[in-house]
Amino acid sequence: MANVKLSIIYYSSTGTNYQMALWAKEKAEQSGAEVRLRKAKELAPEFAIEQNPAWKKHYDETQHVEEASSDDILWADALLFSAPSRFGTMPSQLKQFLDIQGGLWANGKTVNKVVSAMTSAQNPHGGQEATLLSLYTSMMHWGTIIVTPGYTDPVLFGAGGNPYGTSVTVDQNGNMQEDVEDAVKHQVARVLEVASKTLES
Amino acid sequence: MANVKLSIIYYSSTGTNYQMALWAKEKAEQSGAEVRLRKAKELAPEFAIEQNPAWKKHYDETQHVEEASSDDILWADALLFSAPSRFGTMPSQLKQFLDIQGGLWANGKTVNKVVSAMTSAQNPHGGQEATLLSLYTSMMHWGTIIVTPGYTDPVLFGAGGNPYGTSVTVDQNGNMQEDVEDAVKHQVARVLEVASKTLES
Amino acid sequence: MANVKLSIIYYSSTGTNYQMALWAKEKAEQSGAEVRLRKAKELAPEFAIEQNPAWKKHYDETQHVEEASSDDILWADALLFSAPSRFGTMPSQLKQFLDIQGGLWANGKTVNKVVSAMTSAQNPHGGQEATLLSLYTSMMHWGTIIVTPGYTDPVLFGAGGNPYGTSVTVDQNGNMQEDVEDAVKHQVARVLEVASKTLES
Amino acid sequence: MANVKLSIIYYSSTGTNYQMALWAKEKAEQSGAEVRLRKAKELAPEFAIEQNPAWKKHYDETQHVEEASSDDILWADALLFSAPSRFGTMPSQLKQFLDIQGGLWANGKTVNKVVSAMTSAQNPHGGQEATLLSLYTSMMHWGTIIVTPGYTDPVLFGAGGNPYGTSVTVDQNGNMQEDVEDAVKHQVARVLEVASKTLES
Repeated sequence: MANVKLSIIYYSSTGTNYQMALWAKEKAEQSGAEVRLRKAKELAPEFAIEQNPAWKKHYDETQHVEEASSDDILWADALLFSAPSRFGTMPSQLKQFLDIQGGLWANGKTVNKVVSAMTSAQNPHGGQEATLLSLYTSMMHWGTIIVTPGYTDPVLFGAGGNPYGTSVTVDQNGNMQEDVEDAVKHQVARVLEVASKTLES
Repeated sequence: MANVKLSIIYYSSTGTNYQMALWAKEKAEQSGAEVRLRKAKELAPEFAIEQNPAWKKHYDETQHVEEASSDDILWADALLFSAPSRFGTMPSQLKQFLDIQGGLWANGKTVNKVVSAMTSAQNPHGGQEATLLSLYTSMMHWGTIIVTPGYTDPVLFGAGGNPYGTSVTVDQNGNMQEDVEDAVKHQVARVLEVASKTLES
Repeated sequence: MANVKLSIIYYSSTGTNYQMALWAKEKAEQSGAEVRLRKAKELAPEFAIEQNPAWKKHYDETQHVEEASSDDILWADALLFSAPSRFGTMPSQLKQFLDIQGGLWANGKTVNKVVSAMTSAQNPHGGQEATLLSLYTSMMHWGTIIVTPGYTDPVLFGAGGNPYGTSVTVDQNGNMQEDVEDAVKHQVARVLEVASKTLES
Repeated sequence: MANVKLSIIYYSSTGTNYQMALWAKEKAEQSGAEVRLRKAKELAPEFAIEQNPAWKKHYDETQHVEEASSDDILWADALLFSAPSRFGTMPSQLKQFLDIQGGLWANGKTVNKVVSAMTSAQNPHGGQEATLLSLYTSMMHWGTIIVTPGYTDPVLFGAGGNPYGTSVTVDQNGNMQEDVEDAVKHQVARVLEVASKTLES
C-alpha cells in the first residue's frame, strides 16, 4: 500500500474528530501510505469560539493544521472524512468545503476516489448513522467508490457496530464514551487495501 | 385523547418489538385512546421458524394476535410501527404489509394519519437510526404527519437519545440492553397528543 | 388559518428558490397567515459571487430581504424551507443557519413547529429527493411535526410527483424546467392547514 | 474484464426492471463478464397477480428465469440490483431475498462484492433516488464496495442524471418515459471496470 495517497479531511470543534483523524493518520503511515491531514475551514465567528473554552482551546491548539483545499482531493487516491453530527447531517464547515468543489466535480476530478467516513455525537443514536449516510449521498454525486466497515472485523462490535463508519459518543465534557481507536485503525486499513487494488494497472 | 384511534403495527421474530408494542398499548389505553395491536404477517416458511427455538417460541405465543389489515390503517387516526432492523431497513414482513396498501394509498386513505416508529438491532449503531428514517420515507409517500420523539423529554437521553424513535439494542440471547419502557411510553403519549389536536374541528 | 405564523426560510444563489419562496408567501398571505420571508446568510466570499453574473445579479437584487435569525424560528408556528441541492444535501448556507440554532434546540424551542421543505437541482434525479429527506432528518432532531405533500392533490403529478416536497429542475441558464407554482401553493396550503389544527386548544 | 462474475438480481412485476436487467446482461456479456440473471422470488399470491393482466403476463413470460439464491451472491464478484420503488424503498420481494442472507452475511461472504443498483417509479420524483439510497444502506451492512454512476459519462444527463443509479419513469401503461438503455450499459460497464480492478492480485 506504499503507493496510496490518502487525504484525511476532518472538522472538529472540541477535538474528538481530530483525535480520530490522528489515529487514522498513524495507522495509514504505518501501512506505508502517503497521508495528508487537513481540517475544514472554520466558519464560526471568533466571538462564538471565544465563548466556549473547549472550542477555543482546540481551535488554538490546531492552528498548525493545514486547511483542506481542492488540491487535497485532486492529489488523493482515497479520502477519509471525519466530522461530528449536527442534527443528523455533517456540520456546515465540512459541507461548505464539499460545496465549493464544484469545479473539480464538473471536470470529473472526484471520480473513483475511494471514500470512507467517521463521526461522533452526544447521544448514542443522535445521528451517528444518519450523518455518515448523508455524507455518502454526496459522495455518490462525486462518482467515488464507497468503502465502509460493514462488519468486516470483530473489533467493530466493541466499538458499537456501526457498519457505515466508526462513530463515537461524546459526553458534555468532551470525553469519548467508547474506545474506538482500533475501529478507526481497521477502517483506514480497509480503505487503503481497497484503494491499493484500484490503483493496480 | 379519548377520541384518538391508534393502530400499533409491529413485526417481531423473538419478542423485542412485541414487548415495545405492548408497552405502547398499555400507555395509550391508560391515556384513553382506542387501540388496536396488530402483527405483520409472517413470510418465513414454517421450517425456518422451527430451526430457531426463540423464534418458534415467540411465533407460537403470539398466535392470538391479529394480523394487520388495510382496515387497521383506514380505521386509525394514528399509526405506531415497531420492527427490528434488517440490514438498516425494515424487515420484508413489514414492508410487504406496506407494499400491499396501494389501494388505500391511491384513494387517499392514508393521508393525514399521524405516524411514528420504533425499532431494535443487535448493535448500537446497527441500523437503529437508518431503519426508522427509511420507514418515514415511505410514510411521506402516504401523505402522513410524521411525529418523532426528537429530544422532547429527558427520559429519551437514558434510552440512547434516538430522535427518530425509540430503539433498543438486543443481545444474542434476545435481551434488551437498555431500559426503553419509559421512552416508548413518552413516544406514544406524544403521538396521541399531536393526533388529538389534528382531530379537533 | 388567520392565526398561523409562517417563516419561509430559503437560500438561493440565482433565484429559483427565492421564486418558490415568493409563491409560497403569496399563497400563505392570501390564506390569512402571518408570513416572514427570510434568506439564509450567504457564506461565499464576494469575489466568488462577482465571478458568476447570475449569482451577482440575484445577490444584489435581494439585498432588501432580511436574513433569517433564531427569532424567526421562535416566532413561527410553521417553517417552510427552500434551498437548492448541493451534492444531494442542503447547501452549507442553510446548514450553517440550522447548526447555529443549538441554543433554541437545547431549550426545546423548536418542538412542535410544523415543517415542510422544497428544493431544486440541475438534473431531474440530481438530489431532488435526497436533499429534502436529509433536511427532514435534521428536523426530527428538532422535535418538529413533519408535513410533506405526499400525493395529496392531482397538481403534484404535473410537478414531478415529489412526495417529499416541491422540487424543480433548473437548466444551465437558470430556467425552471417544470411549472411548479401550483405545487408550491398546494404545499404551503397543506402546511397551514395542519399547523392551524395543532394551534387549536 | 473476462474474469468478472456478475449476478444481476432483479424484481419486476410488469417488466421494466426485467428489461433494464436484460440490457445490463447484454452489455456485461459483450464485455466478457460471466453473468447470472436472477429474479427475486414473488411473494404475492397467485390471485393478486391474476387480477392485474400486465403483471400476470410478465409473471408467465419470465417463468424460465431462475430465482435468486444465496449461491448467486457467493459466486459473484459484483452484484447489480434492479427493482421498482415501492413507497421510496425496495419492494418486499427483493427485501425478503436480502433478509434471508443472514447466514452468508454472518460468515463474511458478502464482503467486498462490488455493488450497484437501478430502479423505476411512476413519478419522476416518486422514489427514484430514495429507493437506491435505501438499498445502498443495506449494502453497507454487507461490507460491499459501492459503485454508483455519479456523473461519470455524458449519457447520464439524457437519462435524468441520477448519480445513485439508472432510474426510469414508467407510465400507467408500463411504458418507460425516458430512454435509459445507454445509461444502464454505462453503469454496468463501470461496475465491471471497478470489480475487475479489485480482483487483480
